[in-house]
Amino acid sequence: MAFSDQFDPGPQIAQCGTVNLGTRDIEKSLFFFRDTLGMEEVERKDNVSYLRCYQELGHHSLVLTEQEEAVVNAFSFRVKRPQDVALFHEELSRQGIEVLEVPAGAEAGRGEAIRFLLPGGGHPFELYYDMEKPLAPESMRSRLPSNSSKRRGLGVRRIDHFNIQTSPDTINQAESWVRDTLGFKRREFAHLPNRPGTVLASWMSVTPQVHDLAIVANGLNKTAQLHHIAFNLQDFSDVLTAADTLRDLDVSYGVGPGKHGIGQAMYLYIHDPGSDHRVELYAGGYLIFDPDWKAIEWEQEAFPDGMTWYGDPIDTSTGSRGRDTTGCAGLYRNELVPAPAK
Amino acid sequence: MAFSDQFDPGPQIAQCGTVNLGTRDIEKSLFFFRDTLGMEEVERKDNVSYLRCYQELGHHSLVLTEQEEAVVNAFSFRVKRPQDVALFHEELSRQGIEVLEVPAGAEAGRGEAIRFLLPGGGHPFELYYDMEKPLAPESMRSRLPSNSSKRRGLGVRRIDHFNIQTSPDTINQAESWVRDTLGFKRREFAHLPNRPGTVLASWMSVTPQVHDLAIVANGLNKTAQLHHIAFNLQDFSDVLTAADTLRDLDVSYGVGPGKHGIGQAMYLYIHDPGSDHRVELYAGGYLIFDPDWKAIEWEQEAFPDGMTWYGDPIDTSTGSRGRDTTGCAGLYRNELVPAPAK
Amino acid sequence: MAFSDQFDPGPQIAQCGTVNLGTRDIEKSLFFFRDTLGMEEVERKDNVSYLRCYQELGHHSLVLTEQEEAVVNAFSFRVKRPQDVALFHEELSRQGIEVLEVPAGAEAGRGEAIRFLLPGGGHPFELYYDMEKPLAPESMRSRLPSNSSKRRGLGVRRIDHFNIQTSPDTINQAESWVRDTLGFKRREFAHLPNRPGTVLASWMSVTPQVHDLAIVANGLNKTAQLHHIAFNLQDFSDVLTAADTLRDLDVSYGVGPGKHGIGQAMYLYIHDPGSDHRVELYAGGYLIFDPDWKAIEWEQEAFPDGMTWYGDPIDTSTGSRGRDTTGCAGLYRNELVPAPAK
Amino acid sequence: MAFSDQFDPGPQIAQCGTVNLGTRDIEKSLFFFRDTLGMEEVERKDNVSYLRCYQELGHHSLVLTEQEEAVVNAFSFRVKRPQDVALFHEELSRQGIEVLEVPAGAEAGRGEAIRFLLPGGGHPFELYYDMEKPLAPESMRSRLPSNSSKRRGLGVRRIDHFNIQTSPDTINQAESWVRDTLGFKRREFAHLPNRPGTVLASWMSVTPQVHDLAIVANGLNKTAQLHHIAFNLQDFSDVLTAADTLRDLDVSYGVGPGKHGIGQAMYLYIHDPGSDHRVELYAGGYLIFDPDWKAIEWEQEAFPDGMTWYGDPIDTSTGSRGRDTTGCAGLYRNELVPAPAK
Repeated sequence: MAFSDQFDPGPQIAQCGTVNLGTRDIEKSLFFFRDTLGMEEVERKDNVSYLRCYQELGHHSLVLTEQEEAVVNAFSFRVKRPQDVALFHEELSRQGIEVLEVPAGAEAGRGEAIRFLLPGGGHPFELYYDMEKPLAPESMRSRLPSNSSKRRGLGVRRIDHFNIQTSPDTINQAESWVRDTLGFKRREFAHLPNRPGTVLASWMSVTPQVHDLAIVANGLNKTAQLHHIAFNLQDFSDVLTAADTLRDLDVSYGVGPGKHGIGQAMYLYIHDPGSDHRVELYAGGYLIFDPDWKAIEWEQEAFPDGMTWYGDPIDTSTGSRGRDTTGCAGLYRNELVPAPAK
Repeated sequence: MAFSDQFDPGPQIAQCGTVNLGTRDIEKSLFFFRDTLGMEEVERKDNVSYLRCYQELGHHSLVLTEQEEAVVNAFSFRVKRPQDVALFHEELSRQGIEVLEVPAGAEAGRGEAIRFLLPGGGHPFELYYDMEKPLAPESMRSRLPSNSSKRRGLGVRRIDHFNIQTSPDTINQAESWVRDTLGFKRREFAHLPNRPGTVLASWMSVTPQVHDLAIVANGLNKTAQLHHIAFNLQDFSDVLTAADTLRDLDVSYGVGPGKHGIGQAMYLYIHDPGSDHRVELYAGGYLIFDPDWKAIEWEQEAFPDGMTWYGDPIDTSTGSRGRDTTGCAGLYRNELVPAPAK
Repeated sequence: MAFSDQFDPGPQIAQCGTVNLGTRDIEKSLFFFRDTLGMEEVERKDNVSYLRCYQELGHHSLVLTEQEEAVVNAFSFRVKRPQDVALFHEELSRQGIEVLEVPAGAEAGRGEAIRFLLPGGGHPFELYYDMEKPLAPESMRSRLPSNSSKRRGLGVRRIDHFNIQTSPDTINQAESWVRDTLGFKRREFAHLPNRPGTVLASWMSVTPQVHDLAIVANGLNKTAQLHHIAFNLQDFSDVLTAADTLRDLDVSYGVGPGKHGIGQAMYLYIHDPGSDHRVELYAGGYLIFDPDWKAIEWEQEAFPDGMTWYGDPIDTSTGSRGRDTTGCAGLYRNELVPAPAK
Repeated sequence: MAFSDQFDPGPQIAQCGTVNLGTRDIEKSLFFFRDTLGMEEVERKDNVSYLRCYQELGHHSLVLTEQEEAVVNAFSFRVKRPQDVALFHEELSRQGIEVLEVPAGAEAGRGEAIRFLLPGGGHPFELYYDMEKPLAPESMRSRLPSNSSKRRGLGVRRIDHFNIQTSPDTINQAESWVRDTLGFKRREFAHLPNRPGTVLASWMSVTPQVHDLAIVANGLNKTAQLHHIAFNLQDFSDVLTAADTLRDLDVSYGVGPGKHGIGQAMYLYIHDPGSDHRVELYAGGYLIFDPDWKAIEWEQEAFPDGMTWYGDPIDTSTGSRGRDTTGCAGLYRNELVPAPAK
């Protein structure tokens, strides 16, 4: 037995794993995620489609479910070890949090999971370990074994992070819980200018990324909101190419490209035309290997630089800007329900 | 006490931290690392210079020591917790490995460390936790708090990884020890075609990077060799700009730019004109968040694609190519000694 | 005698050649153009400095003259043949335009020129042919003979174009004159929405570039104004790197990066801290080889896309945006005088 | 009448216009040029397909003709004025060169042309003026009027140049004739080391590009050979993305990416799998606006830098390298016949 295996790190989150998005028009969503962004449709069952990016070996990172309301059905995190699902289950129960057991196969290719509502947030979180790693059809397969398929379309290569919102009244509870129980570390953050000590936004991670999960205070005081899900591109230039292409397609364009001061990554916000959910195309950024990283606090004055270091500016009062007010893609529109509406 | 803090993960390596390079001409080395690559000289003591990149908050990631022989004085890894230095010390002693205690300040800005020779490799490894985080002089400071200084020169932003070599006779011992005791995970690897089961090369990491440390079999059967140290650039385009600039400077140019199939990052190999040590400028690559990652094995036939997916090809028989045979920059030239020759 | 030499194409403009900028603080301007953008200071005579970019073989493309008022002293165009200076002189006289003869050496390295005020614009234009091509000092010289020096700084490689303004009352006269007498071709244009048939902006060229010279209607009804001078960068990524660097320097930042729909090039507007003149860093764009190119007209509705296809949006009412209102860098501030104020 | 219109510049070449490629398998060629590189198929007539790039407004820049031999049927240049076709016809007749009149519509969308064999080369050249400018189908149309269609695939945006070969015995004749009669200017060149005064390679242009046409001495002493045709990409990063994608497709890969010292552009050589013709994907490079440009001569010693400033090296003895010897894509394979084999 290796020395490093002689210790028990306890249950841990490995990564931001998959998101299950409701969409009113699955064909429009597939035009967007598969045909434009370049994801592989790994499996299709009735009104549910499973997709992954070209550098993802697991069965899927995105589930599209055609349903009446375009809500997010689940934010799913993968745990580090098979036993961690049960260990988290125990801890959640100990804390009096209601936990739903989700059987293997409820999402195709995935093993058993647990489901609960984020305390203080209300978002439906799921934790799982097992995920099949199917080979792509031979014609799509890459000669690079670290790629599940050939690069296509705008070249999204993996899911990157979730950005969720909750009410300022409960955001501190949600943010602390994610850190204390799920083990996320706070990397950068800001407090609400008018509510000292209340989180305006917190970028947190279990990996060296600056964030795998961001929690932001919702301006309308609503809980259980999505701001966006992000997919990763190789380079800044890929974001520019995506912008060039998307400006010419029938896709609701949000903000970007620009470079965040917070995290130092390039952003481009667009909207899935099937679900109206906001999607961020994201590239670059710095990694944190420092074990004694001190979370960076952004004061009000510097916050606009944190949002937009250069490029198309994010309106820090709405997280949006001029173009992004088409009604089809508001910030606070995604109601989350406790169980998938399949 | 947070749930996630109730477990003991044992001593762990956090990152590839600093390298201490001997150089025959420190001014030439500073022209290279500081004036050309754009590092900040944080401190200078007699014949020793301490440098860091613009996204490194710690005191240094590179030490240049002017000395007669341009050997590597230490490969240093940072541990995750203050107590981990002592815990690793215990384990090394338990294994009968000779350990030297290095007092705080032996490298300026750094706390106590331990030093030992890599079993099967002979390379001088050091482990430390404490590192000061000095502010840059005000004129160099960035308005972005995640940067220690403004971007300059060719824009190297952090140390990335070490690539070391040892004899095929002992490489399996070295590679296993790094995994079993230091907790590195094997991500991609190849076996020697003519010695089944013997590692030709292994790319290993404690972080989601494909490698923080690579170990490669030395063609001349030597132990304790350096192939290169790597610094990270933001984007593929930064590697092209570096190539364009370096081709016009009095710097011994190696191989590149090209894209590795293994790790999927862009490379450019050049040589510090003061020490002749090989340096890789490195950008991109994929990250591994998969807790059940299965190490990718490269068979002989595909290995050239693993070395060079596209671009300036690395000669897989020597790890070099035509231009890189100036004598000043051989693959196997860096003898490592057990104690710094200060 | 070659067949192609048997015809007389008449006097022609070859290129946008040099600009002579007044600056209140030549050291600040040199910090900007030489030390930051990376130009070579070829010659310095008292309060006048001559600079060129690394892909310019001629003596200079920028003259900085320290003087009380930061006006533009001359916009200079190079003609195609030695005799074209005299031929244009004749034609200008025939048209009753006052012409000043500028002796060789009035700008160091340059031959005889003629000077006149643009009819309808009032801008001081100069035409010249002879320009010395001095070698750079050996330490700066590139191994590439098409570069006059090594790439440095943010990598500006040549002057690209001038963008000037005049009153809506006379803009049609100025724009027509530039086309009819100097031989520029209109490539893209817009009319003022409230003054049908009056030019709002016209992008014109004598080369396959979409514009070597743009003329724009001035909102304050002033003549003889400068909007900006532009320098060319290799790639879109160079504009991003410039933005990243400039946001961290004490340089007044305007708008960008973004991509123009008109011309399809990337832009970044900043201000020389010595003169406050607006400078555009410019990359890419399409080239026109079509001899029957039909000038593209932009209707009011599409004009914002013409200004900003993606990225940091230019306020089409002011040609500027929020950040660009520091007072130090207004749109309409540069009074032009008929003779240099040396 | 404008002043600039009062002179007669004589007949002139405007640009490298179209190439008519024979292919043995038009579907394979369309997979390459249309589906992979991203060209628009504007028209299809029986075994002939007409394609253009997204920044070309004219009817086509590439004709694919399915035929038994994959020869080049025509290299076509567009002249500057309608009358120039007849004026060149006169001059060619005066020189005793046999001229074939090609009726309008022989290539769909094109007006009358003349056809002749390049003196000293034997390549079939055609000169034309009229070319229709059809709108793309509405679903493909771009919102940018300077684009004929939306950007797709690997993003080739226009034809860039031809690179042809002929025997060292006649190359001087061919190269002089192109300059003297067609008005091309020599921009960079090299002489054969063993035949002083004999052109090894000459890069010539009628536009500010370093070359619209290159002529190279053929190592096997053959005339009428094609080395490659080149298509233009926006940025260096587009060449990298193309390389990444093409390495994973069933396309014979040549050399690249790399940056030429001559012309300073990025290159990637690949082969149309239908015709085996070599195609260069080309980005960047410098422009020449200097009317007194002195052609740059490359001595033997520096020539490898001229071929490859950085990146995947071109073997200067063969214009190729290791990978590019599959037999399917030799340097000297394209026999040119005097009339299209339709």
